[in-house]
Amino acid sequence: MIRMTFIAVFVGTLFAVTNFSLGKNLEAQTANKTLQERLGYAADAKLLIVHADDLGMARSVNAATIKAFESGLVTSGSIMVPCPWLPDIAAYARKHPEADLGLHLTLTSEWTSLRWGPVMSKDQVPSLLDPSGYLYLTESEAASHATAKEIEAEIRAQIERARSFGIQPTHLDSHMGTLYQNETLFRTLLKVARENKLPSRVSKEWFATRTYLPSILDPSDVVIDRIISIEPQVTAENWTKFYTDEIKGLQPGVTEIIIHLAYDDEEMRGATLDHPNWGAAWRQRDFQFFTSDAFRKLLDENHIKLITWREVGQKLYGNR
Amino acid sequence: MIRMTFIAVFVGTLFAVTNFSLGKNLEAQTANKTLQERLGYAADAKLLIVHADDLGMARSVNAATIKAFESGLVTSGSIMVPCPWLPDIAAYARKHPEADLGLHLTLTSEWTSLRWGPVMSKDQVPSLLDPSGYLYLTESEAASHATAKEIEAEIRAQIERARSFGIQPTHLDSHMGTLYQNETLFRTLLKVARENKLPSRVSKEWFATRTYLPSILDPSDVVIDRIISIEPQVTAENWTKFYTDEIKGLQPGVTEIIIHLAYDDEEMRGATLDHPNWGAAWRQRDFQFFTSDAFRKLLDENHIKLITWREVGQKLYGNR
Repeated sequence: MIRMTFIAVFVGTLFAVTNFSLGKNLEAQTANKTLQERLGYAADAKLLIVHADDLGMARSVNAATIKAFESGLVTSGSIMVPCPWLPDIAAYARKHPEADLGLHLTLTSEWTSLRWGPVMSKDQVPSLLDPSGYLYLTESEAASHATAKEIEAEIRAQIERARSFGIQPTHLDSHMGTLYQNETLFRTLLKVARENKLPSRVSKEWFATRTYLPSILDPSDVVIDRIISIEPQVTAENWTKFYTDEIKGLQPGVTEIIIHLAYDDEEMRGATLDHPNWGAAWRQRDFQFFTSDAFRKLLDENHIKLITWREVGQKLYGNR
Repeated sequence: MIRMTFIAVFVGTLFAVTNFSLGKNLEAQTANKTLQERLGYAADAKLLIVHADDLGMARSVNAATIKAFESGLVTSGSIMVPCPWLPDIAAYARKHPEADLGLHLTLTSEWTSLRWGPVMSKDQVPSLLDPSGYLYLTESEAASHATAKEIEAEIRAQIERARSFGIQPTHLDSHMGTLYQNETLFRTLLKVARENKLPSRVSKEWFATRTYLPSILDPSDVVIDRIISIEPQVTAENWTKFYTDEIKGLQPGVTEIIIHLAYDDEEMRGATLDHPNWGAAWRQRDFQFFTSDAFRKLLDENHIKLITWREVGQKLYGNR
């Protein structure tokens, strides 16, 4: 019910928009086509982006995600440019220009044993730094301390740095959702995404808690239908059941399932020491499920088509 | 033979020095006592510091080194402050104030998949950065591009940052020997070490290739007798034999054996991908040997006493 209301608000907003600069795109939207139709699929198509976050954070994350890409079951991922293993995943990106790699724009450094700072020179972005000189531990600290100006400079620097490493990002999203914390930050993300002709992670479901969203979105912005993301209340025993139920219940439209892949090894246990949520065992469980034959079978049985952000960018923005 | 010459030059220099500010210390040295005697041991004492480099670089390094510290057979280590796992080893340092932890002053970032930048704000130390914005890959590039002024600022910042994390360094040394590359850099290291009342890694054997050394050393500077460090020409099969022979042949005086500990795991294999020298398997071999009963037995049989840099600093500088 709530969802229907937001869709109505969103569609209304689309019609109200007066900026027709991206004519073709807008025409498709104003014709009230669904996103799956605009992408060339049937209205009842169930499209799924299986997206692994946090590339670059640790070798364990890179290695497990690359392995999952090879399975063909994980279609997409995004890279944390300020992190120490950026050169490792950049080398993969250069060797696999077909890979669907976006940027996981990073304004937080959430672990306590492994940390990172900004891409920008520290004295140019003092509002992004916690007292120890790293990025803030939490998205709320980052959002409340950082100035929009410095955030914009930093995310532009992350995009530029990724390109200088030979990464051609296909999409943008925000690590820990820092850029979705308030309207100003969301506007900053959308502005930078538009300038770079990149789709960014925005879901219709978010309209419920971010009432400003319809008014700041442009008809050219891609809005997917929903996001699935496992939460800490799901026990390890229920991991497979949670994902299985979600996939069986998948509705027509474009869904992104956000996962976190790594091995439960010394490095990840060390990194996530004080933090079982999104920790090493969690990520190993995600890896197990999303590279399994059971997942492949579920996709087949439920007629789910895996897509990528690259496909979205190609079809809607004419990207490569 | 060569070694005797350098000792003679060194002793001569000591007598020529006119700065008597550190009276007690100097008195001991001018009385021509050996370092082991100044530390309160017999002239024929065989003293050994077993020193693990590169703490902070990776979780694998931290975990293996901490495990080796627990064996009691590895006495000392040094921390790379700009590296991503600094907070992890700093937490260990705070919990183990007795640990002999120095700083492995870092001006290079030598791997290609895992990299780091300076502690200072990047725009304040542009001469330390390679074109990708990390520290240089090699010690020779760092030494030839970096200005002494920026190096001094950076190493001071590394010491200050370590202290802000609750690390009370017991000694200083230089990652990849960048600070031993030329006289100017060596002077910088000695200046900063003296101001911090910290012994730094200087060996009599180095006088052979660094003829300026006697003239820049002060009687208060600690100079150990020799350094043992395994080199790439030693095959994996000869690893144990190399160390065994070195330990059996250990001469009276103070020797530091420099080792590199880590596990041969996904993280270290990823980090050292293109670089078998000082790579993952190398470090696992070091770990195996230096935590073995065979090593413990060799120390006993050859009447070798393990010491620490902390002990050196306590006895010669009155440090805690």
